[in-house]
Amino acid sequence: MPDNNEDSTSDPSECIVGTSRRGFLTRTVALGSAAIGGGPISATADVAVPANPRLYTYVGGKGGGWSVESTKTIVGEPLPVVERISIVHGAVDGMPDGGKWILRGVTSNERYANREEKKHISIQKALGRPEADHGAFIPIKKNAAWWALTQDERRAIFEERSKHITIGFKYMPTIARRLQHCRDLSENEPFDFLTVFDYTKADMSAFDDMLAELRASEEWKYVDREVDLRLVRIGA
Amino acid sequence: MPDNNEDSTSDPSECIVGTSRRGFLTRTVALGSAAIGGGPISATADVAVPANPRLYTYVGGKGGGWSVESTKTIVGEPLPVVERISIVHGAVDGMPDGGKWILRGVTSNERYANREEKKHISIQKALGRPEADHGAFIPIKKNAAWWALTQDERRAIFEERSKHITIGFKYMPTIARRLQHCRDLSENEPFDFLTVFDYTKADMSAFDDMLAELRASEEWKYVDREVDLRLVRIGA
Repeated sequence: MPDNNEDSTSDPSECIVGTSRRGFLTRTVALGSAAIGGGPISATADVAVPANPRLYTYVGGKGGGWSVESTKTIVGEPLPVVERISIVHGAVDGMPDGGKWILRGVTSNERYANREEKKHISIQKALGRPEADHGAFIPIKKNAAWWALTQDERRAIFEERSKHITIGFKYMPTIARRLQHCRDLSENEPFDFLTVFDYTKADMSAFDDMLAELRASEEWKYVDREVDLRLVRIGA
Repeated sequence: MPDNNEDSTSDPSECIVGTSRRGFLTRTVALGSAAIGGGPISATADVAVPANPRLYTYVGGKGGGWSVESTKTIVGEPLPVVERISIVHGAVDGMPDGGKWILRGVTSNERYANREEKKHISIQKALGRPEADHGAFIPIKKNAAWWALTQDERRAIFEERSKHITIGFKYMPTIARRLQHCRDLSENEPFDFLTVFDYTKADMSAFDDMLAELRASEEWKYVDREVDLRLVRIGA
């Protein structure tokens, strides 16, 4: 579970929630950065500006491709329990019927791995292998003390003392993951990171072992909210 | 100009553009993360969710507290020339009359400074000193090669080889600045960073010296879009 992520592939299990894609795009222009590409911008332009292609949205409710088998609050405030999760590549235009929460995040550049570590990370599989019909969605928030650390202090805790990247290596490539960052989105978000994983049923116990190692580490002393949702793909 | 920023103070020169603050807040709920605090969430809730308190919006147009004295494209696509800039702490609900562009970013945790360097940074002044009636707004985008580097590689270029933090120290505290990050906002943004500075007229040449040093550095080889707008406070 290294803190690295490439914009690898889209997840075949994704489904699109919300009908007004155009509504979103138009609003994006109205809201903000109309200056894509730097051309002249009209205040009344109604053009389709692409949403951030690194944005993913997770909708908890009654629809979507993954059934929620269990919801466990590890620390901090719980999330309302839902029956299903929709994983959407892109934005969602409003809460769908039966929806209880929407969480969003963007994949981004790596924050901690060095070059040698990054070479290993290339063995990581992308989400969406047909046989990987079990999964987990784990949103995480770190506390103010973590964010007040300097980069070198965070790196020392993350890897030199907590072995986050090293632990992750042990479980690749059987466990695929994608990390999304929420902390620097436009709105105030309830979590700093959204992590999503998929694996086969046979690898579920390995996944549990990985989480146990990470949660016992010094890094996790800085986690002040974590909810662990276990998923099974609909139709699996 | 170290790549560091605290959520220091609000800028007294800020003015609020856009009339429908409530409109924004309501839309925020409709758009996304209603799960603030983790309580139960209604799909139809129409409650005021705070926007990210680290969000700043820059509106180029005919209004606002700063007159644009010059607009120079350093590299890449230009920005449409405007008469004035509004600096808004928070979001802006749509393009105001006469507006040509809106750029947004969030202040965030430090990405490069170590503890020793951070001690120095505490001498940095916040924006908004009454005598600092000159300023600059410089949005910057770095290229894909930069973002493909690992953290240690970026740090080595940023400070060990380009002396970004060290150069910045020399000009503190006469030049105040605030750095906002755009790359991980929800929408695709035309710049990665927005930097804003204020200083007295007497310190303008020092500011130019600082920029010349930075732009000559290895780090700046990775900058593929930069526009330099010079500002004077209205009424100065």
